[in-house]
Amino acid sequence: MKGIRFERQLLHKLWDNGFAAVRSPASGGAISYPMPDIIAGNGKRFIAIEVKMRKSLPLYLTQQEIKDLVMFSNLFGAEPFVGIKIPRSDWRFVKISQLKMTKKGYKVDDEVYNLSLDFDELIGKSIQKRLE
Amino acid sequence: MKGIRFERQLLHKLWDNGFAAVRSPASGGAISYPMPDIIAGNGKRFIAIEVKMRKSLPLYLTQQEIKDLVMFSNLFGAEPFVGIKIPRSDWRFVKISQLKMTKKGYKVDDEVYNLSLDFDELIGKSIQKRLE
Repeated sequence: MKGIRFERQLLHKLWDNGFAAVRSPASGGAISYPMPDIIAGNGKRFIAIEVKMRKSLPLYLTQQEIKDLVMFSNLFGAEPFVGIKIPRSDWRFVKISQLKMTKKGYKVDDEVYNLSLDFDELIGKSIQKRLE
Repeated sequence: MKGIRFERQLLHKLWDNGFAAVRSPASGGAISYPMPDIIAGNGKRFIAIEVKMRKSLPLYLTQQEIKDLVMFSNLFGAEPFVGIKIPRSDWRFVKISQLKMTKKGYKVDDEVYNLSLDFDELIGKSIQKRLE
C-alpha cells in the first residue's frame, strides 16, 4: 500500500507540472499487454514510466520488464524510464541506455543512480531554468 | 461485466492495428483526475476514448464528462473521441465537434451516429485504403 501512495504522489506531481498522467491498471485482464505503470503527456513529450520502490540499491530488473517497457514505448511513441523511489530520497528516473546489463537482466547501481535524472530533468524543467 | 468485455475487445483491436493502448483504472484513488477510458498511441497519433455502451440511441453525455475528456486530451496531446457500442453494431467513434448540445449536456442521436467514424476511420486505415 505504501508503494501505491508514492506512485500517486508521482502522478500528482506530473499533473501539477502540466502533464496529463494515468496509472495503468495492475492487471490488464485475461490477455495482458506490456503496460508501463504510468503514462504521461503534455502535448509535446510522452513519457512511459516503470515504477520501482526499493529500500536500497542495487535495483535488479528482468529482461522481460525492460523489453515490455521498451516495446510499449516504441509502439505508443513515448520515452521509456525506470522511476525509482528509495526511502528519504526523491524520485529518480533512469533511461534505458543508462541501465547496466547483468547475466539475467539489468541493474541500477549507485553509479547509474547518480547519473539518473531528477523530476525536473525528467520533464525538461531544469533545462528551461538554465536557459532563462 | 459485459461492458468490460467489449472494452477489452476494443483494446485488443487497437493493439492488433499497431496502437499501444491502455485502459484507465476505474478509480484514480482518493484524488481523481479526468481520465478517459482508453488512451492509445502509435507513435504518430494519440487517441483518448470515452467508452459508452448503450442498448439504443440517443446517448446522453453530461457537460462534465465531455469537459473532462477534452481537458485531458488537450493537456496530454491526444484527439478526443466518444466510443459507442450498441448491441449487434460495430464500434462507432464520435468527434467532440459532432456532438449535439442539449440543455444539460450533449447527445448522440441517429444523425450524429450516422456521421461518426468506424474503427478503420478512427485509426486512419480507411484513408490509406482509398489512396492505395
